Amino acid sequence: MSLKFFHGHGSPYAWRVWLALEHLGLPYELTVLSFSDKDQMKPGFVAINPRHQVPTIVHDGFALWESLPILEYLDEIAPARRLYPGSAQERARIRRLIREEENHLDDQGLTPIYQELYTRGPGEQPDMAKLDAGRKKLAEELDYFGSELKGRFLAGDSPTAADFALYPEIAYVKRIGAKKPESGLAGILPPPIAEWAARIEALPYFDKTFPPHWRS
Amino acid sequence: MSLKFFHGHGSPYAWRVWLALEHLGLPYELTVLSFSDKDQMKPGFVAINPRHQVPTIVHDGFALWESLPILEYLDEIAPARRLYPGSAQERARIRRLIREEENHLDDQGLTPIYQELYTRGPGEQPDMAKLDAGRKKLAEELDYFGSELKGRFLAGDSPTAADFALYPEIAYVKRIGAKKPESGLAGILPPPIAEWAARIEALPYFDKTFPPHWRS
Repeated sequence: MSLKFFHGHGSPYAWRVWLALEHLGLPYELTVLSFSDKDQMKPGFVAINPRHQVPTIVHDGFALWESLPILEYLDEIAPARRLYPGSAQERARIRRLIREEENHLDDQGLTPIYQELYTRGPGEQPDMAKLDAGRKKLAEELDYFGSELKGRFLAGDSPTAADFALYPEIAYVKRIGAKKPESGLAGILPPPIAEWAARIEALPYFDKTFPPHWRS
Repeated sequence: MSLKFFHGHGSPYAWRVWLALEHLGLPYELTVLSFSDKDQMKPGFVAINPRHQVPTIVHDGFALWESLPILEYLDEIAPARRLYPGSAQERARIRRLIREEENHLDDQGLTPIYQELYTRGPGEQPDMAKLDAGRKKLAEELDYFGSELKGRFLAGDSPTAADFALYPEIAYVKRIGAKKPESGLAGILPPPIAEWAARIEALPYFDKTFPPHWRS
C-alpha cells in the first residue's frame, strides 16, 4: 500500500488528517508544502489536486482532498473503525459534533475573531462589536463542547474524528490568546476543554504534528 | 420503526434530506415548520434540537441534526447504501463533491450573490464587484460540476447524496435568476447542469418536495 499525505503547517484542516493518520497507525509518506513558497500552486501539486489545497492524500494512485472525506476514507481503509467507532447512532453523533464545530464554533466564533485581528489592512482598527460577538459565541460553544465530553474524549475514552476535527481550532484559540492580548482569548477555555486539550497534547504522536513555527 | 423528519420550505439543507428519504424509500412522518411563525423556536422543537434548525430527524427516539450527518445516518439504516454507493473510493468521491459544492460553489459563489441581493438594508445598493466575483466563481463551479457528471448523475445513472446536496443550490440559482434579473443568473446554467437538474426534477417524488411558495 502506498499512502501519501500532503500537509501544510498552520492548516487546521490538514492537522486533523495528520492526527488521524497517526491514531489509525497507517503507514504514510509525508510531504510538507510551504505556503510561503506557494508550493501548493506548483504544477506538480496542482496535477494531483486541481483545488491546490491541503490536506490531500494519494492512496495507491487515488487522489482525495477535503478533510472530512479524507477522515471517512482513512477510517474505511484502516483495519478498525477507530475514527468513527460504534453504532450508526454513535457515528452520527461524531459527524454531528464535527459539523457543529465547523458551523458554530468556527464560522460564527473563531473565524470572525480571526478576521478582525488578522485580515484588516494596515492601520485599520478591528470592529470591536464583531470581535465581542465572536468571543461571546466562542465562549458559548466551548461550554457546549465541554458538555459533550463522554469520558476523556468527545465520544469515549479514545479520541475519534470529532476530537481531531476540534483540536486544531482550540490550538488556534490558545495561540491567538497568547499572541494577541486584545483578542481576550487568553483564559477563555473552560476547564473541561482545557483538560481535554491537554489530553490530546499528551498523545504520543502529538508533538511531531505541532507547527514548528508556532514553537517560538 | 419510527422516523420523524422536520422540514422547512426554503431550507436547501432540509431539502437534501427530503429528497434522500424519498430516494431511499424509508417510511417517515413529515412535520413542516413555518419559519414565518418561528416554529423552530418553539419549546417543543427546541427540546428535540437545541440548535433549533432544520433538517432534524428523530429515529426511534434518537434525535439528529446537520444535513450531512443525517444523510450518512439514513444511508446506514436503509436496506441498501443508495446515497453513498460503491467502493470506499467511490464513496469518498461523493463526499468530496459535497464538500466542494459547499466550500466553493456555495460559500464563494452563490452565498455572496445572495448576500448582495437579499440581505442589504433598504435603499442600500449591492456591491457590484462582489456580485460579479460571485457570479464568475459560480459559473466556474457550474462548469466543474458539469465535468464531474458520470452518466445521468454525479456518480452514475442513479442519484446519490452528491446530487441531493447540489440540487437545492441549483434550484436557488434558477430562482434568483428568475426573480432578480440584475443577478445575471438567468441562463447561467451550462447545458450539462441544466439537463442534470431536469433529471432531478423528473424524479417521481420530486414535485412534493418543491417549496409551495416558489410555485407562484
